[in-house]
Amino acid sequence: MTTPQAYIDRQLQRFQAELFDFLRIPSVSARSEHDADTRRAADWLAGRLRAVGLQAEIVETARHPVVLAQWRGAGRDAPTVLVYGHYDVQPPDPLELWTSPPFEPTVRDGRVFARGAADDKGQVYLHVAALEAYLANGGRLPVNIVLVAEGEEEIGSPNLVPFVERYRERLACNCVVISDTGMFAPDLPTIVRALRGLAYLEIQVEGPRGDLHSGTYGGAVVNPATALARIIAAMHDENWHIAVPGFYGDVRDWDENERAVIRALPFTESEFRAQVGSSALDGEAGYSTLERLWTRPTCEVNGLLSGYTGEGAKTVLPARAMAKVSFRLVPDQDPARVGQLVREYVNRIAPKGVRVTITELHGGRPWRAAAEGPYLQAAARALERTFGRPPVYTGEGGSIPIVGEFERILGAPVVLLGFALPGANMHAPDEWFALESFEKGMRTIAYLYEELAG
Amino acid sequence: MTTPQAYIDRQLQRFQAELFDFLRIPSVSARSEHDADTRRAADWLAGRLRAVGLQAEIVETARHPVVLAQWRGAGRDAPTVLVYGHYDVQPPDPLELWTSPPFEPTVRDGRVFARGAADDKGQVYLHVAALEAYLANGGRLPVNIVLVAEGEEEIGSPNLVPFVERYRERLACNCVVISDTGMFAPDLPTIVRALRGLAYLEIQVEGPRGDLHSGTYGGAVVNPATALARIIAAMHDENWHIAVPGFYGDVRDWDENERAVIRALPFTESEFRAQVGSSALDGEAGYSTLERLWTRPTCEVNGLLSGYTGEGAKTVLPARAMAKVSFRLVPDQDPARVGQLVREYVNRIAPKGVRVTITELHGGRPWRAAAEGPYLQAAARALERTFGRPPVYTGEGGSIPIVGEFERILGAPVVLLGFALPGANMHAPDEWFALESFEKGMRTIAYLYEELAG
Repeated sequence: MTTPQAYIDRQLQRFQAELFDFLRIPSVSARSEHDADTRRAADWLAGRLRAVGLQAEIVETARHPVVLAQWRGAGRDAPTVLVYGHYDVQPPDPLELWTSPPFEPTVRDGRVFARGAADDKGQVYLHVAALEAYLANGGRLPVNIVLVAEGEEEIGSPNLVPFVERYRERLACNCVVISDTGMFAPDLPTIVRALRGLAYLEIQVEGPRGDLHSGTYGGAVVNPATALARIIAAMHDENWHIAVPGFYGDVRDWDENERAVIRALPFTESEFRAQVGSSALDGEAGYSTLERLWTRPTCEVNGLLSGYTGEGAKTVLPARAMAKVSFRLVPDQDPARVGQLVREYVNRIAPKGVRVTITELHGGRPWRAAAEGPYLQAAARALERTFGRPPVYTGEGGSIPIVGEFERILGAPVVLLGFALPGANMHAPDEWFALESFEKGMRTIAYLYEELAG
Repeated sequence: MTTPQAYIDRQLQRFQAELFDFLRIPSVSARSEHDADTRRAADWLAGRLRAVGLQAEIVETARHPVVLAQWRGAGRDAPTVLVYGHYDVQPPDPLELWTSPPFEPTVRDGRVFARGAADDKGQVYLHVAALEAYLANGGRLPVNIVLVAEGEEEIGSPNLVPFVERYRERLACNCVVISDTGMFAPDLPTIVRALRGLAYLEIQVEGPRGDLHSGTYGGAVVNPATALARIIAAMHDENWHIAVPGFYGDVRDWDENERAVIRALPFTESEFRAQVGSSALDGEAGYSTLERLWTRPTCEVNGLLSGYTGEGAKTVLPARAMAKVSFRLVPDQDPARVGQLVREYVNRIAPKGVRVTITELHGGRPWRAAAEGPYLQAAARALERTFGRPPVYTGEGGSIPIVGEFERILGAPVVLLGFALPGANMHAPDEWFALESFEKGMRTIAYLYEELAG
């Protein structure tokens, strides 16, 4: 009888090749021209899950479908694990900054470069591989499995909460395992215990009916791009505190013990600065870099567009200006409430002579894990068996809005067990996933099922 | 013997058709992919001038050529008039806002819609037609003519001053006539006596080496788009005064008599507001709309670009942000000096954690006409003969940088005699020129030659 770990040894090349097939599908959920590709990724994944031995179906939603699969052969007394991931990816723009094409997976220095390599196809697929390692050749898993892979994570999971609520009985489980996060450092296995939430807004500022000649009209007509810049500049004070009144009202501060755990992590600001390539680091006064990333809310401009942006000079007074602005939230901030506070503030500070429209593109609640429990401990043991050392516990600046929703709807704790390495360029050009992380991820998940079964 | 005015009567349709041919050539000087088109426009114009009876040649410059033509048959005792215009046009973007294609001239309601219709091909071509009205059938002009049409006006005329200096002897003249401005109102013939200058800058703000995930990194890495917004917001104070230290140092204020001439013009703010379509007008405190446009310098954002600007939401912390920012200048501001003041100010106020680069894309000096002289009076009589009423004297918010340079290099006064009507969408989608203006422009220029000859 082959052990799951021995099976992984032998099938590693094939698992990689299959991951590359998955990565070749440009399942960009935000772009309607990729809708067919996004569906193709769902079909591909469901097909693989069936081949592995799960029952798998495609569940339609208002936009991109959910892949729902299960294996219930461990019996009523065995725990049920819900695995969640997503098969959609971020848009690849700007394309010209990719070293190799985003949907042509390319290995360099032991890393596979492709959009979705780390976020989240690579980390979804290592679960598929771990399941196959048990189920191949008529084998069995020690736990029951429900697998949910959605196609809308990168656009804010608008249809996932209705899905989870509707399928609540079928999704009943003892714990939820999600691999969509990273490790704090190479060889440092990591369990993430805090996630920020998100309120993502688009601000449209309209001035004159059409673009005007900036000489003929400039000075007497309020410029929407200037007005937008003023609005954005007013989001922070000089200490990078967010200046929206009431914004910090629901922020739960981390206590000194929790801050001490963060301080104990192996982290140097200078290395972080060198990694991101900024000339200096700065952020909210009174907090360290890791505290700014994990424990504090933030306001970021994600995109700006107005007027003439091509080669050379065009003397236009633009009719409109657009900003995409997103707020990362921490417990107990609520995205709808934050959206409302921002709307009221912007309407108050917007210069006379422009019309401002704010659209909420998506939102998600922040999350912090409950105190330790048996599932978190099982995950820690599985990581230690793979990596030879116990995990560190960290936060994560990004958002996985569904985490809090799973806990709320299903009443089961979520364990965040991710394998991306720092600098993986999630959401940026040249996204990558280390092939070693792919392998260790499979091994850890395979161990996890043993540990969960007790 | 046919009079020039009778000739214009009979050839009007053909002149219009020829103008349309001129407008079909997409001579967008700012875009290198249109370089061949820009040259084609020069060749076309030179060909027409030769057909009319002038000597015409194409003079090469470092980029787009100058069309230089002359007719010297009036003799040494007759005055020499230099006509200046430009055959290049603004980029037509955004294309989707044009009712008909920008390079397919289309007549609606007595107006021809096309990029360059008013700025400046239509106004160049009415000069060609007026010359033909004299020279057809072996006729003669009462003045000597030098015609200069450049192909770089819309990119700041980088090679025109060297051209004028090099050809100074051949360009020697008694006055310079330029039709590249507008009339204050329909049926209100207008002579422009003030132009603003220009300092056009591109501001590039760079932060991290590449785009980052705004969740993973947001809060600890200074966002270049936010930094850019702060820089732009700091360009004005709350009264829309420009906040760059020293900016107003060289501004020559208009005296009370000059301001009274402006106040006497038929102008209502509410009509102007309705025309531009803004919800309200606003600008530098203490000045009327026309004063803001003609007598005061301004700072306008012409373009903004950063991060993700497509459909939906992308949670990116952009690596860079770009603004095109231009300052309109009034006498005696100097574009190089203003560029330097802005550079010093931006470097001082730029947030820590970003690198700012400022590139001067182009500049031009502001201009005010000297006191009245015989050439201005001749122009006023020509306008009165065409329109049946004396002209008004106005300013213009836009820039024609060469105006001051002609006066400086050639020592001849410039007369600005333009025929575009308000709302002509110069530099915007749906640019138009009234066919009536085209006709009255030809007639005025034909009268002007008689008046100049005395």
